[in-house]
Amino acid sequence: MSLKYFFQPEAVAVVGASRNRRKLGWQILDNIFKGGFKGAVFPINLRARRVAGRPAFSDLAALPLKRRERERLLVVFAIPAPLLLREVEKCAVLGIKNLIIISAGFKEVGGRGRKREEALVQLARKHQLNILGPNCLGLINTFNALNATFAAADKKTGAIAFLSQSGAIGAAVLDWLKTKNFSLGYFISLGNKAVLDENDVLVYLARDRRVELIVAYLEEIKDGQKFMALVSRLSKHKPVAVLQAGQSAAGGQLARSHTGALTSSLAAVKAGLKRAGAIWLENLEELFNLLSLFRKEFWRNRGREDLYLITNAGGSGVLTVDEISRQNLKLGRSWDILGDADAQRYRKALRKLLADKKVNNLLVLLTPQTMSEPLLTARFIAAAAKKYPHKLIMASFLGGKAVASARAYLEKQQVPVFDFSEEAVATFKKLLTYKHSALNLSPYRPPAVRIKKPVRADDYLRALALLKKYCLRTVKSFRYKAQPRLSFKRPLVLKLVGPDFNHKSEQGAVVVGLKTRAQLRSAVKTLSLKNKSLLADGRNYFLIQPQVNKAQELILGFKRDPAFGPLLLIGRGGIYTEIFNDVAWEIADLDYQRALKLIASLKIYPILNGARGQKKYAIAAAAHALVNLARLANEHPEIKELDINPLFLTRDSALAADIRLVLS
Amino acid sequence: MSLKYFFQPEAVAVVGASRNRRKLGWQILDNIFKGGFKGAVFPINLRARRVAGRPAFSDLAALPLKRRERERLLVVFAIPAPLLLREVEKCAVLGIKNLIIISAGFKEVGGRGRKREEALVQLARKHQLNILGPNCLGLINTFNALNATFAAADKKTGAIAFLSQSGAIGAAVLDWLKTKNFSLGYFISLGNKAVLDENDVLVYLARDRRVELIVAYLEEIKDGQKFMALVSRLSKHKPVAVLQAGQSAAGGQLARSHTGALTSSLAAVKAGLKRAGAIWLENLEELFNLLSLFRKEFWRNRGREDLYLITNAGGSGVLTVDEISRQNLKLGRSWDILGDADAQRYRKALRKLLADKKVNNLLVLLTPQTMSEPLLTARFIAAAAKKYPHKLIMASFLGGKAVASARAYLEKQQVPVFDFSEEAVATFKKLLTYKHSALNLSPYRPPAVRIKKPVRADDYLRALALLKKYCLRTVKSFRYKAQPRLSFKRPLVLKLVGPDFNHKSEQGAVVVGLKTRAQLRSAVKTLSLKNKSLLADGRNYFLIQPQVNKAQELILGFKRDPAFGPLLLIGRGGIYTEIFNDVAWEIADLDYQRALKLIASLKIYPILNGARGQKKYAIAAAAHALVNLARLANEHPEIKELDINPLFLTRDSALAADIRLVLS
Repeated sequence: MSLKYFFQPEAVAVVGASRNRRKLGWQILDNIFKGGFKGAVFPINLRARRVAGRPAFSDLAALPLKRRERERLLVVFAIPAPLLLREVEKCAVLGIKNLIIISAGFKEVGGRGRKREEALVQLARKHQLNILGPNCLGLINTFNALNATFAAADKKTGAIAFLSQSGAIGAAVLDWLKTKNFSLGYFISLGNKAVLDENDVLVYLARDRRVELIVAYLEEIKDGQKFMALVSRLSKHKPVAVLQAGQSAAGGQLARSHTGALTSSLAAVKAGLKRAGAIWLENLEELFNLLSLFRKEFWRNRGREDLYLITNAGGSGVLTVDEISRQNLKLGRSWDILGDADAQRYRKALRKLLADKKVNNLLVLLTPQTMSEPLLTARFIAAAAKKYPHKLIMASFLGGKAVASARAYLEKQQVPVFDFSEEAVATFKKLLTYKHSALNLSPYRPPAVRIKKPVRADDYLRALALLKKYCLRTVKSFRYKAQPRLSFKRPLVLKLVGPDFNHKSEQGAVVVGLKTRAQLRSAVKTLSLKNKSLLADGRNYFLIQPQVNKAQELILGFKRDPAFGPLLLIGRGGIYTEIFNDVAWEIADLDYQRALKLIASLKIYPILNGARGQKKYAIAAAAHALVNLARLANEHPEIKELDINPLFLTRDSALAADIRLVLS
Repeated sequence: MSLKYFFQPEAVAVVGASRNRRKLGWQILDNIFKGGFKGAVFPINLRARRVAGRPAFSDLAALPLKRRERERLLVVFAIPAPLLLREVEKCAVLGIKNLIIISAGFKEVGGRGRKREEALVQLARKHQLNILGPNCLGLINTFNALNATFAAADKKTGAIAFLSQSGAIGAAVLDWLKTKNFSLGYFISLGNKAVLDENDVLVYLARDRRVELIVAYLEEIKDGQKFMALVSRLSKHKPVAVLQAGQSAAGGQLARSHTGALTSSLAAVKAGLKRAGAIWLENLEELFNLLSLFRKEFWRNRGREDLYLITNAGGSGVLTVDEISRQNLKLGRSWDILGDADAQRYRKALRKLLADKKVNNLLVLLTPQTMSEPLLTARFIAAAAKKYPHKLIMASFLGGKAVASARAYLEKQQVPVFDFSEEAVATFKKLLTYKHSALNLSPYRPPAVRIKKPVRADDYLRALALLKKYCLRTVKSFRYKAQPRLSFKRPLVLKLVGPDFNHKSEQGAVVVGLKTRAQLRSAVKTLSLKNKSLLADGRNYFLIQPQVNKAQELILGFKRDPAFGPLLLIGRGGIYTEIFNDVAWEIADLDYQRALKLIASLKIYPILNGARGQKKYAIAAAAHALVNLARLANEHPEIKELDINPLFLTRDSALAADIRLVLS
């Protein structure tokens, strides 16, 4: 269903419009009137003839609208939850398609509320209804002068769309914006996301050219693959930034109890956002800083990326350069115009620097001192920003009272201004990182694959054989029998494998360096005695492999994420994998080039690549193995988790030496 | 010299007191009067009879004071630099001991200014003068109602002393404090630190019981050893927090050009502050957050350390728990009192939680929603904080206009309040870390050692022999001669050593695994040919060592820091030391227990300690080696740098296999 008339309705009705100013039904109606919405506005109230000075209607059915007009109507519900389903059914009958349900009392209260929400979803599916919420703040579209929320908001339009899954955080953002003299294009409170979710909204926002940045606060991304498909296309011309709460284990648990969402792991969210080319926000401070700093011109600008500074305090300059260094950014120049700088000296420095084509990004620092003129300096900065709209000009005025009005002035003039220069530098870095990743982004396509016959994971050699089917080489492995024909050219490794030996090293189920038949027999004997009961199960047995030396041990694997699909892993392997914690994650549509990049992101990479005059390892083979494993992950959805550890990476090949499989 | 009368003078004279309100000389005088200083105040002006309505004197010599009174006089100079030395000489003659030099035009301008400062230092030494500055903002001592700066400041007293090496940042802090309704005990602008530096001031502040926290912004710590000696004693009962600018390479360069200081490395500063038990601040935001959060009661409190939350927004709760998790803190409970919580519901939750003895640390989150009453909630929080002065009660009110007055109220009531809960959590963590380290801190004593005869570093075997003198075991090493008596029980290693072979692996000057005499001879031949010219220098020669297997390669070493003395290093060694970057630093007074702790801080530690059922390495031997190396570093000040890499750590010993020495 198109959301055109949901976001740009020709008329709005408020069900539950109230004469009581303390009620949401009054506040919403009042906001719609105050906002200056151009279309018709219909208060719906069972008893009152007039609400807020306008004629009211007793029922949606009573509205003087034709069917076509009803399709272009947006209805906002602010009535108790138990009354809702009947009203929604009425909408379906009347051909009303676009609904906002402000009312709480659904999934978030559990029990009866959960059932009510399920019924709502059924209705919406059956009748193709666009429903925002329930349990939300509503919608603001400043381009249409529509404020269909119960929160006061600015009338001006803006280039940023803000989505929030939390009403409270949405309200806080609106409140913050007011003090910053800052307007949004859209404000969308997603609420319980029973019907419309972030993906639906993104599809609509993608097409609105007036929207230049989309920022979302989410507590879960429901359909990560759709999200990546959408956003990876969007990112090249319209950045999307996401703050997802519940990234820690404890936070995730709380989020689940709060929203009932099955949250993805932090690794999955980070890999998914990266794949989508989205900007990952770690906390609310980063979110607010991004709102402050974002300028379309900046990220479209293909010029030089060094950051220049003007400062009237040496100390501030040094601290800022420290942060530039910490963020791995390039410093153009830090120009100390000294403590006695007045506004004119700032003006001259601004002129001189900005006239230089090399200077694309400038941060102006001011610390209030005897000769400082903060407000006048702010005026000069704002004037410079107007003159050079394609350069990024930021300011950081340190202090309190002495710089308060200057800061407010800069905010009013849309010049990004920060309390601390560190914030400016870190946010700048974030946008730069986005810019680089968006440039090289290929659109994500959920892999179209033929699902293969499920594997039988209960046999170890069969699992290894599965790897071979996907062109992953394995160490020569065969079952130990009493009188095996063995070559001892290389020492052998004896292992116990099977469902009861998933942690072989810790279980003492691996013996290496067996050089003679006698050593082998003795090892078999010892292990047999120790593991008698487990070996009674025929799925557990002895395996023999030739020992691989001079290899780097890697781990290769995947985990299936509920939202983002299979998540591939490569890292430093062996028995110390967790200790080194040198692993990298990627979405399973990766190709050879991205596999190479992923490997290059490992800390161990310089060693694989022959650091300090040493020989190189077969990085290409590891990359191919990753790509093949991705194919396996996509074609075998019955496998929940798979680990190859170790994968021996030698100078010329990548050999899987052990496998662990978990079926779902 | 005691600084008693410097900080608590009985009278103050201002040299350069002016009738022109735009001049510093007027502003300083005005601040002294406005501040309500109880002692006599003498404006000194060559011509004017009266300044600021008070009788003025033409010269310091004309003051109606006895010698004893002059010793208790503080003189503030705000006259041009070229006139200063004569005035300071006059002070010496008159027996005036305490001077503040506001005037700029010294070291910071280079050339003549530098010479002027040197002369000033000479005078101060000769006559034992206490001089603050030059090129500073001055001094505020609110306990004596003395504001001897040209910056406006609050009259109220406070428990925090703030030191700043930068006038500009000092001014910004004072300005910020005004908006926060926050008062300092002392404000001390150190300026060029020609005479009085942070250490002198710390000695004084250590004794003032009214000061509960000392915060310093420094661009260099001149005498790090003295600093550690002072602060490690102070830390147990009075925390000291330091922000040192110029920590990055680029920032350090800038700092040097700015202050002419020889800055310590970041590793040295961090190790030094840690040794001193000081709180390390990374940037100004952390500094301001600490000022906001600090409560003496908190760190004296020995109770439980979990952090409790009250929130009216699930999302805010989740984000805060994420940060608690990131900071490795323990969450007590996150209590969601729901979006429709009014002030009374907050009050009840506060009562219930705070009555619980387990609850020591509480963060109250508020997001403005329809039923929220931010200001009334703030009142209840402030009341609770008064009722439970020994509990740490913090607040974070998200948003803008709707919470502005509530925030201001909390600030006025001295309740720490933050824009973002992350800041509260991170600052809380900082204080907690301080608390733990301060508890276990032993006082630092610059090692009293007998300096030994300098080593001759030009001979490699002699350098190895030096290690043996300090009980550091080395791999058996001997010079290769044409017909050596060799045992090939273990394979041998052949190395080229000497002043031209400092990067042996990269130079291809190491051959391992030599199992026969023939292999050895062939290796010698090859290397001889390749390094013919270098071998002409008799200090370069062949060395033979038995190969050590099954060992972890560590690096052990030290660097001499200009401020903090020898800085010991231990880390993962071998040819990939830089790639692993797993190193830890310590001050060279370390003992066995601290050596063990240092080793335990390495990422590789779990492996050394026998992770995953493996055998343990000889950690005790590595710790002893560190302690012995510290002794060597202290007794041989002529060695600027020393590296042992690799140090082979086996199951039962630590063996130095290679050494690199740099003499100063």
